[in-house]
Amino acid sequence: MSSAALDVALAYHRAWAGGDLDAALEYIAVDVVCEAPPGRLEGVDAYRAFMEPYVSQLLGVTLLGAFGDDSTAVVMYDSATRLVAQAPGAECVTVVDGRIAHSWFVFDRLPFQAARAAQAAVVGSGDAEAPAS
Amino acid sequence: MSSAALDVALAYHRAWAGGDLDAALEYIAVDVVCEAPPGRLEGVDAYRAFMEPYVSQLLGVTLLGAFGDDSTAVVMYDSATRLVAQAPGAECVTVVDGRIAHSWFVFDRLPFQAARAAQAAVVGSGDAEAPAS
Repeated sequence: MSSAALDVALAYHRAWAGGDLDAALEYIAVDVVCEAPPGRLEGVDAYRAFMEPYVSQLLGVTLLGAFGDDSTAVVMYDSATRLVAQAPGAECVTVVDGRIAHSWFVFDRLPFQAARAAQAAVVGSGDAEAPAS
Repeated sequence: MSSAALDVALAYHRAWAGGDLDAALEYIAVDVVCEAPPGRLEGVDAYRAFMEPYVSQLLGVTLLGAFGDDSTAVVMYDSATRLVAQAPGAECVTVVDGRIAHSWFVFDRLPFQAARAAQAAVVGSGDAEAPAS
């Protein structure tokens, strides 16, 4: 069974999981359409802006499952980040001419939102206490 | 290539996607361990309690990708629910003796939390206005 889409999906995955977002984006079509938790992303620049904060705080990635055929692949992984200790995600990608042209991207935003709120609270609390110290 | 795990994952998926949670749970091991967004679920009763609120408000499910081999499968789908119009999810399952023994379950809890908060606000607003009506 041919697995051209899986090959591309795994090359992309290994690149960003290793912290190299530029290399990962080589596998993303310029006019990619990605259905992501914050909404639809259109174009590789929007895709980069979406991935950058996540990749920049990655501590490690564990591949859970990766399967595909000639046109479609599904990759699922767990990850540890500085904000969230356990942040699994899944991507279902459609590959055209060696690049990801369409993607469904799923992860749970709730722990990221909670972690950012906690960070903001600490910063806020520090500010509030500053005059007293 | 044998795909026994994919067969089980798809039978389970089609059952709950059709609204039949009892039939779906026939494919879940009694001592299943599931890494889900709210945390680790242990046992089929915990798994049922996790799935029930979601399945009970399902409007429709679209399969996005499903692949697997003899022991592992990954299934990704979009769904529409009464609470959240677009709620994609992904499951990476390990199958032992014809049942899902281990699972990673990913979806975005944020829109569900927002929808429940909005519901609560409407209920609260209704309560507050009741004495005046």
